[in-house]
Amino acid sequence: MLAALDGRDVPLYDMVRYALGWQEADGSAREDGGGKGMRPSLAMLTAEAVAGGDEAALRRAVSGAAAVEFVHAFSLVHDDIQDEDRERHHRETVWVVWGRAQAINTGDALRELAERALRRALDAGASAATVLAALERLNHAALDMIEGQYLDLSYEERAVVGVEDYLTMVERKTGAMIGCAMAVGALLAADDAKAAAALDRAGRRLGLCFQIRDDWLGIWGDSGATGKSSESDIRRRKKSYPIVHALEHAPAAERRELTTRYAQPELSDADVDAVLGVLASVDARAATERAAEAHHAAFEAEVAGLRLSPPARASLAEVAEFILRRAF
Amino acid sequence: MLAALDGRDVPLYDMVRYALGWQEADGSAREDGGGKGMRPSLAMLTAEAVAGGDEAALRRAVSGAAAVEFVHAFSLVHDDIQDEDRERHHRETVWVVWGRAQAINTGDALRELAERALRRALDAGASAATVLAALERLNHAALDMIEGQYLDLSYEERAVVGVEDYLTMVERKTGAMIGCAMAVGALLAADDAKAAAALDRAGRRLGLCFQIRDDWLGIWGDSGATGKSSESDIRRRKKSYPIVHALEHAPAAERRELTTRYAQPELSDADVDAVLGVLASVDARAATERAAEAHHAAFEAEVAGLRLSPPARASLAEVAEFILRRAF
Repeated sequence: MLAALDGRDVPLYDMVRYALGWQEADGSAREDGGGKGMRPSLAMLTAEAVAGGDEAALRRAVSGAAAVEFVHAFSLVHDDIQDEDRERHHRETVWVVWGRAQAINTGDALRELAERALRRALDAGASAATVLAALERLNHAALDMIEGQYLDLSYEERAVVGVEDYLTMVERKTGAMIGCAMAVGALLAADDAKAAAALDRAGRRLGLCFQIRDDWLGIWGDSGATGKSSESDIRRRKKSYPIVHALEHAPAAERRELTTRYAQPELSDADVDAVLGVLASVDARAATERAAEAHHAAFEAEVAGLRLSPPARASLAEVAEFILRRAF
Repeated sequence: MLAALDGRDVPLYDMVRYALGWQEADGSAREDGGGKGMRPSLAMLTAEAVAGGDEAALRRAVSGAAAVEFVHAFSLVHDDIQDEDRERHHRETVWVVWGRAQAINTGDALRELAERALRRALDAGASAATVLAALERLNHAALDMIEGQYLDLSYEERAVVGVEDYLTMVERKTGAMIGCAMAVGALLAADDAKAAAALDRAGRRLGLCFQIRDDWLGIWGDSGATGKSSESDIRRRKKSYPIVHALEHAPAAERRELTTRYAQPELSDADVDAVLGVLASVDARAATERAAEAHHAAFEAEVAGLRLSPPARASLAEVAEFILRRAF
């Protein structure tokens, strides 16, 4: 990924490197840098799954893995401004350190760097047509992701959000780039457009599974493991999966209870308990687990139909299983 | 440009259409929509200059013209948030109507739409390699533009900005996309990489000429024609060309006068008069005119070396002459 920054000389790139977890705000290097790297890992695993151990194929796919990580970083920097989040991965967010105006530039620059990174697949032997197809996937997924963020913000203004609304939003906001990671991995490694389309669908399902599990953790997770207080999503009045499930399935009285509590600017401990009571009354916890499992199963079904190298197929299944079951 | 929005269904695109000047905030259509359209016009004129009247070539170039306009709109939406500008072209800016968070999404979406628009050149017969080369120009210019915006914001924090600093900033912030418009026009119309490189350089010079003239108008322009009060750039303490020229050429006492006045949070009429006095003492008005003329001449010199269709060459010269002499 470093190579995408070659020849760029302004201090803007200190903000870029900070956002990527490569360095600290004072410019010093960071050893343990970066987030979970789920998207680039999925891109590389998918590349291996379609191309086996072909070294050249994997070298081409590295450009795609870097590109999706750049786009992901771009979205986090802008999301943190939009949500006014002051901390991410135990560090101050970019806008807190450098201000909102320069944080907007940082996100914008990361988006351009994604394309620079992807184009390096040409040096690794990919054809212009293949790189153009990969860029199209990236472009399409980024636009979906931006639409998802638009919907997510607009749902904050609405008292009631349905399960279908929620799924539409999450598929775009989270699913699109995970699907893209897998599709781009397949395209660059094996130039297989049909497999790429199936893997895109599979990745979107995995993204839904990931977010629904995230929503489960935001209410019933162990705060020691997740690093955020349990019930934190309720205190933030997030319309997460358990909540939209309850809004759709609770009887009128409980549903009114939920919307009234959520309509307040701040939630007390008593409010949180009342919301948890409504969730329990419709068994939202089990429903959330079933929803995550259903999307996991849909992922497995998409992948089952593809010719993939057995060890990489097993690794993909492991990652998906981890995403479904993770406790943090 | 409309086609780039095909199939996209969320209300995010109402904000996009507003930003492009196609509709009002309430969704009603706007007849006289859009800005000056300088960049798409230059893209099309350049296409005609390299390909003559070849209809197919011009159809391919239309995609490039649309793409540069989308990128330009993206930059304006984000700039208005960053500069806290409340009005543009006599309308409220996107962030004033929809808030900062959704305005960030609007700019982000416009950037993705640029790529969608450019890819339509494939339908008009452009090869994958040509479209990839055009995308690379767009990517490079957008990154330059973001760096320019980074520099512009960072200069606000500095007491002294040199003429070289100013030129570096403006070439990226304004020049890069004008150069890109011309380069992409040439690439899509005639697949001529060498001409595209020269036209990129020419367009960057034209961008410098444009901005320096803009800076001249911001101080000595007729407010009736420009729509902003004369001396408005001084009141905004903008480090425009006349100011950076004076900072470099004024004797110590005048220079101190200038930095002291500019260090205040607000400038009184007396401050503005004092700044105008310093500018007059170093003949900044004539120096600004000479600088605009020098970049105009450099544009002409780049273009003179190219084989271009005579009527389109004459039109390009007319546009450049207008940019140099315009009173609004």
